[in-house]
Amino acid sequence: MQPHILLIYLYIMITTDILIIGAGPTGLFAVFEAGLLKMKCHIIDALPQPGGQLAELYPKKPIFDIPGYPSVNAGELVDNLMEQIKQFQPGFTLGETAVSYTKVDDEWFEVVTNKGTVHRAKAIAIAGGLGTFEPRKPTMDNVADYEEKGLEYFVKEPEHFRNKKVVIAGGGDSALDWSVFLSNVASEVTLIHRRNEFRGALDSVEKVQDLKNQGKIKLITPAEVTAIKGDGKVEAITVEIDGQEAFDIETDYFIPLFGLTPKLGEIAQWGLNIEKNAIVVNNALDYQTNIEGIYAIGDINTYPGKLKLILCGFHEATLMCQSVYNRLNPGKKFVLKYTTVSGVDGFDGSRKEAEKAVVKKID
Amino acid sequence: MQPHILLIYLYIMITTDILIIGAGPTGLFAVFEAGLLKMKCHIIDALPQPGGQLAELYPKKPIFDIPGYPSVNAGELVDNLMEQIKQFQPGFTLGETAVSYTKVDDEWFEVVTNKGTVHRAKAIAIAGGLGTFEPRKPTMDNVADYEEKGLEYFVKEPEHFRNKKVVIAGGGDSALDWSVFLSNVASEVTLIHRRNEFRGALDSVEKVQDLKNQGKIKLITPAEVTAIKGDGKVEAITVEIDGQEAFDIETDYFIPLFGLTPKLGEIAQWGLNIEKNAIVVNNALDYQTNIEGIYAIGDINTYPGKLKLILCGFHEATLMCQSVYNRLNPGKKFVLKYTTVSGVDGFDGSRKEAEKAVVKKID
Ligand SMILES: Cc1cc2nc3c(=O)[nH]c(=O)nc-3n(C[C@H](O)[C@H](O)[C@H](O)COP(=O)(O)OP(=O)(O)OC[C@H]3O[C@@H](n4cnc5c(N)ncnc54)[C@H](O)[C@@H]3O)c2cc1C
Ligand SMILES: Cc1cc2nc3c(=O)[nH]c(=O)nc-3n(C[C@H](O)[C@H](O)[C@H](O)COP(=O)(O)OP(=O)(O)OC[C@H]3O[C@@H](n4cnc5c(N)ncnc54)[C@H](O)[C@@H]3O)c2cc1C
Repeated sequence: MQPHILLIYLYIMITTDILIIGAGPTGLFAVFEAGLLKMKCHIIDALPQPGGQLAELYPKKPIFDIPGYPSVNAGELVDNLMEQIKQFQPGFTLGETAVSYTKVDDEWFEVVTNKGTVHRAKAIAIAGGLGTFEPRKPTMDNVADYEEKGLEYFVKEPEHFRNKKVVIAGGGDSALDWSVFLSNVASEVTLIHRRNEFRGALDSVEKVQDLKNQGKIKLITPAEVTAIKGDGKVEAITVEIDGQEAFDIETDYFIPLFGLTPKLGEIAQWGLNIEKNAIVVNNALDYQTNIEGIYAIGDINTYPGKLKLILCGFHEATLMCQSVYNRLNPGKKFVLKYTTVSGVDGFDGSRKEAEKAVVKKID
Repeated sequence: MQPHILLIYLYIMITTDILIIGAGPTGLFAVFEAGLLKMKCHIIDALPQPGGQLAELYPKKPIFDIPGYPSVNAGELVDNLMEQIKQFQPGFTLGETAVSYTKVDDEWFEVVTNKGTVHRAKAIAIAGGLGTFEPRKPTMDNVADYEEKGLEYFVKEPEHFRNKKVVIAGGGDSALDWSVFLSNVASEVTLIHRRNEFRGALDSVEKVQDLKNQGKIKLITPAEVTAIKGDGKVEAITVEIDGQEAFDIETDYFIPLFGLTPKLGEIAQWGLNIEKNAIVVNNALDYQTNIEGIYAIGDINTYPGKLKLILCGFHEATLMCQSVYNRLNPGKKFVLKYTTVSGVDGFDGSRKEAEKAVVKKID
């Protein structure tokens, strides 16, 4: 390695107290509880946005069993959690998957992502939910040649597509919603689906119908994309209508949105006790795994009585932070503080507190 | 017992699936989780209103660590929980303390309150927080003679005081706030405090100052109530100003509001494992106590790693309901349902559900 590259490498190495893998509700709330105990957090997530299943799978749907919320939209809950943790300034490595970990010394763990980003932390909290969401890919042989060269499985940065030609394939909410969204950004949006019927929110289906009528979305159904063409990057795709007529469409991007399947991925190779795709933790004591200093919280863990619910992840995150605090501050007596009584001191210098009682004469 | 009395007795015996002792946030949320599993709940609380510590001790203060709420007033959180559980029609026995329990047969527990109300249930969830709040009583020898005969430690039903003369003693929020409230209800409100300074929310102190200036509250400070007088009920109290001058004030009610101290009370005699005023549960598996079918959730229980936080009580209530469901439905395979996907069916016939996806042709 060249010296100046080494320098850059060191420079971009991220250092924190608790490295959280997974920015679902559990990982997000862990930042808050850690912050109350003056511990810093950094979160890695394979998805381009925080929120886990709530943001990726059902952002517009109401949840009815968040305590104290008779009803709350999943996306709104994520927004509220982001607002709640803001003061603790979590770092984010988004769009990258945590693949390997090493124990560097007595104090530090190191976790590297699929893109080579290095993170050092004193404890690891795996809040990976059902795992990383792997896109269902088209079945053409040459898909690997075009990945991130015009073939995209997620819309990470919509601006990327400004004034470009885009072909979207799929018949569910993601295909509908991104077609609507990109119709205002891209120079041309073509939506291809193998049936005439789409399955999604009524509102989304109707919007696509409108935009199609206005000529802002080109619709080709029932049809399938059977080939990707281009020299080093996507330049065109081949469509086959109803298994018969086939023709090419010039495009800059091809975005197949065929749904996601969760995969535990390389974390399964870390030497953790795994049962039915979940990480076994120590009977709900503090949600530590068989590897000291590595915790598993939220949907990804299992213990007797486990329920895969958001509210359970919140509790698990809280007890985990407690345990990490005790690890990092041996011998220091922990005193539980109520936020109402002690207030909340942000790492950004902010302070939230209840109005103090006054002692005042009445005369 | 006369036959018609027996009939009335049977008639008023309350029967339910889970009897919850304590209407704090933990007990309230248990109603929701039980409801999702089609189990009915009835709640007993010694206080006149639901909400536990939140309603009794800090209703106007913000809490910052309820997941998904950057800030929520304690009273508002209780209102939201009441709204969330409404559809499951919980029964309430308020203003009564659960004092004894018996196991009637294999199926039923029976719990009787200090007022003799009998409750039958298939499981008991003790969500008693720090215990019942016992009022600090004045030190006169004869206080017992006047209790509930004009001497009141709680304002249970404000209407009770309409057009009556009321003397309130105390220097904190409760004394201030009830003086303000009752100044609109009672014919005369006198507030007595042993110092000139009051300790409370600025707003409350200022309101009392205003009402005093308008002549709607009579203020006597620094002073103490040294005697209660009356034949079978409160008719007057004696006030001593600054330990010197003493005189009588005619009044229908004397309400000393000197604060509350929590007491575990008779539940300590039920044969449960108790450690430091808390009930020991089975290492966080399902929060069952040493007596099968009796659970302890929220602040009142203890296990390794226990944190006395509201969000932990929510999780404990959820796992408890799960366990009761399995007890009451042996052999029935439990399948976790997401509220977002399955909706919520109230016992009142109501239904909440996410908007369904449509399957619709676009042409
Ligand atoms: C349709 C639907 C409806 C639901 N309704 C409800 C409901 O009403 N109530 C309820 O309580 N629950 C509901 N759930 C379940 C709820 O969404 C989950 O319990 C919750 O999302 C779990 O949160 P989490 O933070 O543990 O994990 P997730 O939300 O799954 O987040 C995990 C995150 O970790 C990331 N990740 C995983 N592995 C890696 C890695 N190696 N590197 C980088 N990132 C990684 C993933 O990309 C993901 O973003 C529902 C789920 C679905 C699908
Ligand atoms: C000033 C203050 C600030 C706080 N701030 C926070 C905060 O910021 N965040 C946080 O998470 N927590 C906070 N807490 C703690 C929080 O209030 C408790 O964790 C919570 O109230 C526990 O809920 P619970 O339902 O278990 O019990 P409780 O709220 O204590 O309710 C128990 C109820 O049971 C009743 N009861 C008990 N025994 C009997 C009996 N034998 N018969 C009938 N009724 C009975 C009592 O009357 C009471 O109403 C704070 C507490 C205080 C005092």
